[in-house]
Amino acid sequence: MSCSGKECLGWAARDSSGHLSPYQFSRRAVGSDDVWVKITHCGICYGDVAVPRNKFGDAKYPMVPGHEITGVVKEVGSNVHGFKVGDYVGIGATVNSCQECEWCDISQEVHCTKGVRTFNAVDVDGTIAQGGYSSHYVVHQRFCFKVPDGYPLASAAPLLCAGITVYSPMMRHKMNQPGKSLGVIGIGGLGHMAIKFGKAFGLSITVFSTSESKRDESLNKLGADKFVVSSNAQQMAAQANSLDFIIDTASGDHPLDPYISLLKTNGVLVLVGVPTEAKFSPINLVIGNKTITGSGAGGNKEMQEMLNFCAAHKIYPEIEVIPMEYINEALERLIKRDVKYRLVIDIENSLK
Amino acid sequence: MSCSGKECLGWAARDSSGHLSPYQFSRRAVGSDDVWVKITHCGICYGDVAVPRNKFGDAKYPMVPGHEITGVVKEVGSNVHGFKVGDYVGIGATVNSCQECEWCDISQEVHCTKGVRTFNAVDVDGTIAQGGYSSHYVVHQRFCFKVPDGYPLASAAPLLCAGITVYSPMMRHKMNQPGKSLGVIGIGGLGHMAIKFGKAFGLSITVFSTSESKRDESLNKLGADKFVVSSNAQQMAAQANSLDFIIDTASGDHPLDPYISLLKTNGVLVLVGVPTEAKFSPINLVIGNKTITGSGAGGNKEMQEMLNFCAAHKIYPEIEVIPMEYINEALERLIKRDVKYRLVIDIENSLK
Repeated sequence: MSCSGKECLGWAARDSSGHLSPYQFSRRAVGSDDVWVKITHCGICYGDVAVPRNKFGDAKYPMVPGHEITGVVKEVGSNVHGFKVGDYVGIGATVNSCQECEWCDISQEVHCTKGVRTFNAVDVDGTIAQGGYSSHYVVHQRFCFKVPDGYPLASAAPLLCAGITVYSPMMRHKMNQPGKSLGVIGIGGLGHMAIKFGKAFGLSITVFSTSESKRDESLNKLGADKFVVSSNAQQMAAQANSLDFIIDTASGDHPLDPYISLLKTNGVLVLVGVPTEAKFSPINLVIGNKTITGSGAGGNKEMQEMLNFCAAHKIYPEIEVIPMEYINEALERLIKRDVKYRLVIDIENSLK
Repeated sequence: MSCSGKECLGWAARDSSGHLSPYQFSRRAVGSDDVWVKITHCGICYGDVAVPRNKFGDAKYPMVPGHEITGVVKEVGSNVHGFKVGDYVGIGATVNSCQECEWCDISQEVHCTKGVRTFNAVDVDGTIAQGGYSSHYVVHQRFCFKVPDGYPLASAAPLLCAGITVYSPMMRHKMNQPGKSLGVIGIGGLGHMAIKFGKAFGLSITVFSTSESKRDESLNKLGADKFVVSSNAQQMAAQANSLDFIIDTASGDHPLDPYISLLKTNGVLVLVGVPTEAKFSPINLVIGNKTITGSGAGGNKEMQEMLNFCAAHKIYPEIEVIPMEYINEALERLIKRDVKYRLVIDIENSLK
């Protein structure tokens, strides 16, 4: 029986309050290159707070958030040979692209200027793309990823955004080499994944947090080597010139100079969070040829590699599974940073 | 006849006014690894304004500035085999280092933590290093460079700091590949050299200046391909996503976001000037994996390569040669940006 035409049940924001409530809508019919995915889980990313609340000024309502999607294939188009009914799959923050530009050619689809985001975007057929807080998704096969056998779908969900967002810059900057030193600023969904990848890569890991309360878990549960309270100037100074690479996941405004001074010569600080503004003293980059760079998500090829890597090395995000009905409280908890370390919606048992 | 013990005549600042006046002092005797250089020319770098005026809070008076030094070898130590009396040589912004650390090992002496700057520093023998606004210098052979045959000593002087400061990051970021696009912010001593190197490398060059008055010279004399008045939002917008690399030579505070938006995906903006503070919106780095980096001077190996490259490609800085007595007016002109494009002191005919 064809899934095409099945109504989709989601939870949508109707205005910039970001409050979510049930919303029924249609997705496109399954095209020849499409995969119809029954969603089982969707991770909650900070983007699910910011975009519905119109932080970027581009909100389209009603808006169903969610771009850390996992589920089960229920139908495939005639051109789809890489997936079959019953496969466990994931969908990340991008669901389409031009597939012929210089970036698509090297599987860096994330840079394609015609890329389609998973929600709050216009898809290639002109419909509004709605996200994964919903019962199913229809996605081009190129943007559908195989969840490795045996890897839990609930755990896989956060990999599709939080995971790839830290994995991609680590690979690009050759931080998969044992013995290198990694700093991680902020221990949330992204930060805790950076620690887990760092451990698997054999890095020496220093965690920076505003809160002493994160020390025990950072060291003893997540396995970091050092923990520094970032407001403690003495602790910070003790780490001067010690780090090859810093992943800065903090989304609130914070000074960069104290962290730049912790980089070795030629060291790199990569911003994956999105504060409003960042400031630094140029002399701190000039002396030691240091670098501040940005990174967002990753390409499709490295997405699949990352999923496979997590399965092979038994890397699992720390998750708390919640029912769909709890979503508004969950978003508030995200704002208050009261999450260890990623919330995942149990779509399968919430939206039947 | 040994040069050791000869008194050195320089011009020194006595306090943070930065006003220079004649000053007699001693340099160390010629050691076994030293080269005694009779200075013929010294370029005037913005550091010669900032350091004597104690902008960095580390001024030691009396202070003889100058680190774009050229001259003639008059004596060499017993271990010196690469230089002989009569050779034309140059000295840049660093005159000593530990010579055994990881950075010295790969000829990136500029990063050696024991590096000795050419002036306002303490040399290895404990004496205060004094700069090139003086009659001679005694320098370790490792930090002495050969000025290629036939290359004028007056023209070579600015290469020792302005030249290497733009050449080094261009090489490090592979901007010596024809067809790439280069932006240059600020058309002073550094900026005009970036254009000249860019031309030699076969780049497409866009110049950014606050002043329309620089258009004609930038395009018709220096050979840039495009000229953009940076305060003109329309002109700026027309260059969006067009540049592989931007060299930012401006030393005054200026917003970075308008320039970041001109970078292509994976593009790099390198700061070689030293504003007090820089600001940007992190989202502008995250989208397109863009980078802000810093660079100061360069290593010894690439310094010699750069000098040879300039000789081979007939690249000459645009200079105005002045007598030593004119130095205080010259420094004022530098502050007022009334220089096209590098002032060089005729030491040879000023300090006899």
